[in-house]
Amino acid sequence: MNLNYSHNHTFRVRYSETDRMGYCYHGNYATYFELGRVEALRSLGVVYKVLEDEGVLLPVVSMSTRFKAPALYDDLLRLETTLVRAENCTLEFSYSLFNQNNQLLTTAHTVLVFQSLQNGKPMRIPEYLRTIFAAHEIKT
Amino acid sequence: MNLNYSHNHTFRVRYSETDRMGYCYHGNYATYFELGRVEALRSLGVVYKVLEDEGVLLPVVSMSTRFKAPALYDDLLRLETTLVRAENCTLEFSYSLFNQNNQLLTTAHTVLVFQSLQNGKPMRIPEYLRTIFAAHEIKT
Amino acid sequence: MNLNYSHNHTFRVRYSETDRMGYCYHGNYATYFELGRVEALRSLGVVYKVLEDEGVLLPVVSMSTRFKAPALYDDLLRLETTLVRAENCTLEFSYSLFNQNNQLLTTAHTVLVFQSLQNGKPMRIPEYLRTIFAAHEIKT
Amino acid sequence: MNLNYSHNHTFRVRYSETDRMGYCYHGNYATYFELGRVEALRSLGVVYKVLEDEGVLLPVVSMSTRFKAPALYDDLLRLETTLVRAENCTLEFSYSLFNQNNQLLTTAHTVLVFQSLQNGKPMRIPEYLRTIFAAHEIKT
Repeated sequence: MNLNYSHNHTFRVRYSETDRMGYCYHGNYATYFELGRVEALRSLGVVYKVLEDEGVLLPVVSMSTRFKAPALYDDLLRLETTLVRAENCTLEFSYSLFNQNNQLLTTAHTVLVFQSLQNGKPMRIPEYLRTIFAAHEIKT
Repeated sequence: MNLNYSHNHTFRVRYSETDRMGYCYHGNYATYFELGRVEALRSLGVVYKVLEDEGVLLPVVSMSTRFKAPALYDDLLRLETTLVRAENCTLEFSYSLFNQNNQLLTTAHTVLVFQSLQNGKPMRIPEYLRTIFAAHEIKT
Repeated sequence: MNLNYSHNHTFRVRYSETDRMGYCYHGNYATYFELGRVEALRSLGVVYKVLEDEGVLLPVVSMSTRFKAPALYDDLLRLETTLVRAENCTLEFSYSLFNQNNQLLTTAHTVLVFQSLQNGKPMRIPEYLRTIFAAHEIKT
Repeated sequence: MNLNYSHNHTFRVRYSETDRMGYCYHGNYATYFELGRVEALRSLGVVYKVLEDEGVLLPVVSMSTRFKAPALYDDLLRLETTLVRAENCTLEFSYSLFNQNNQLLTTAHTVLVFQSLQNGKPMRIPEYLRTIFAAHEIKT
C-alpha cells in the first residue's frame, strides 16, 4: 500500500561529522536517515528498539542519495522523513534534508526489509504495524 | 568517455564499524567506497590529497547502494572499484564488495564532480587526469 | 582560575553508535564530550563555530575516561559538562554521563589548548572569554 | 605480571576521519587503539573475534590519551601497541602513534577487563591466554 506519513526531526551537525573540505562527510547521511526513520516510527508509537528486542530486524536493502549542497558544522538541520510504502516484507522511506535557511541539501530513498532474528529470513510486516501504517494509506 | 579500470583493495571490518545486529553498519560503506576510489586513483598515479591541496575538490553528488548480505566483524573484505566513466566535470565509479569466501555483499555506483576550491563551481577534468584516464577508454 | 559552571545536554544513543556487544562503542564518547563542551559554551553565549571562524582553534591535548557501565541503543543520556579551570592557554572540562535511570555510566576529564589558526601556536585565552569565565570563578 | 610484547600496525588516515581543522578527529584514536590491540593479539595467535564468539568479552574500562601533534589526511601511520600487564581479570596496553616522518603524535594507555558474556561479570584471564602472555613476562 502507498502511504503518506511525514515527520520532522531537527539536530545539529557535530564536529566529528565534518571533514577537511569543511563539509559534513557524506557518509554520515546514512546515520541521519536512520535517525529520521526511528523518530518517524516513534511518533507513530513504534519503538524500533522494542521491535528488535522482539526478534524483528529491519535492515536496509537499498539506499540512493542525491547530494545537492553541503551541510556545514553546527548547521541546525531539519530532516523530513516520509513513509511512502509498505508491502509484504518491505518498508520504503523518502528523505529531504534542509538547513536553517530552509535550503534543500540532500534527498534520499531507502528500502528496508522485515527480517526474523530467529532464522534470518524475510518476514511479513507484523499485523499491528500494518494496522498503524494503514491509517496513512493513500487511496488512488 | 566510457572507461574500464578496476582496482582491488583489501581491509578488515573494524569493531567500531559493527552494530548491535552484529553487522557492519551500513553507513560505513560510503567510507569503504571512498577508500576504494582513493586507492584506485593512487594505483593510476593520482594522489587525491595532492589534487585537493592543488585546489581541486571531488565531492560525491550521487550514490546508490544495494546491500545483499551483511559484512561481519573481522571479515577480510575485498572491494573492487571500477572507474566506468569520465565526462566534462564528472567521474563515475562502480563498486563490488566481497568477503573472504568471495561472496558478493554489496554493489554501488557513485557520481563525483570536479569542483574548484577557489570559486566552489564545477570545473572540467584537469587535462593531465584526462590523459591518464583515456588510456583505459573503451571504444564502442 | 578554578571554575564551576555546569551544563546538561540530553541526547539518544544512535544505532550507528552501537557495537556487536550491544553497547555504545566506547570510541563515541569523545564525540559526546565534544557535544557537551560545545553546548556548555553556547549556554554561556560562546559559539565555538564563530570562535573557529575567527581563527581561534581549541584542540584537545589530553583526555582520560573511566567507563563504569555501558550505554545502550536508544538510551536517553544526560551529559553533565563542567568547566573546571581556565589558565593562560588552557581550558579544562569534567564530564559525567548518566542514563535515563540516572545511573552514572562514564566520567572523563579533558584539557584543551587555545591555538592560533594563523601560526599554529598556543595563544592566551581571548580577553572577552576570560571575562565570561571569570563570572563562574571559585574563590578559595 | 608485567609484560613487554610490542607489535606494529600500519594504516592510512581515511578521509572520513578528518575534521574541518584538517586533522584526524581525536575521537578516532580509540578506534585506532582497538585496531592495534586486535592485531597485537592476532600476532600472538589470539583472534579477538573467536574469544568473543566463545563468550569472553574484553571491554575497555579506562583510557587516557595525550595528543601531541595531529595526524593528517592520508598520513601513513604506524601504531606501536605494547601489552604491558596481565593481572587477575585485566589487561593493560600502551600505545605510541607515529606518522611517516617517525614523529610521535599520540600516546595512550588502556585497561581492559575480561568479562563473561553469560553473566556479565568480570572473569579471570582464560588459562591458555595466561600461558601465551607469560612467555613475554618481565622478571623484575
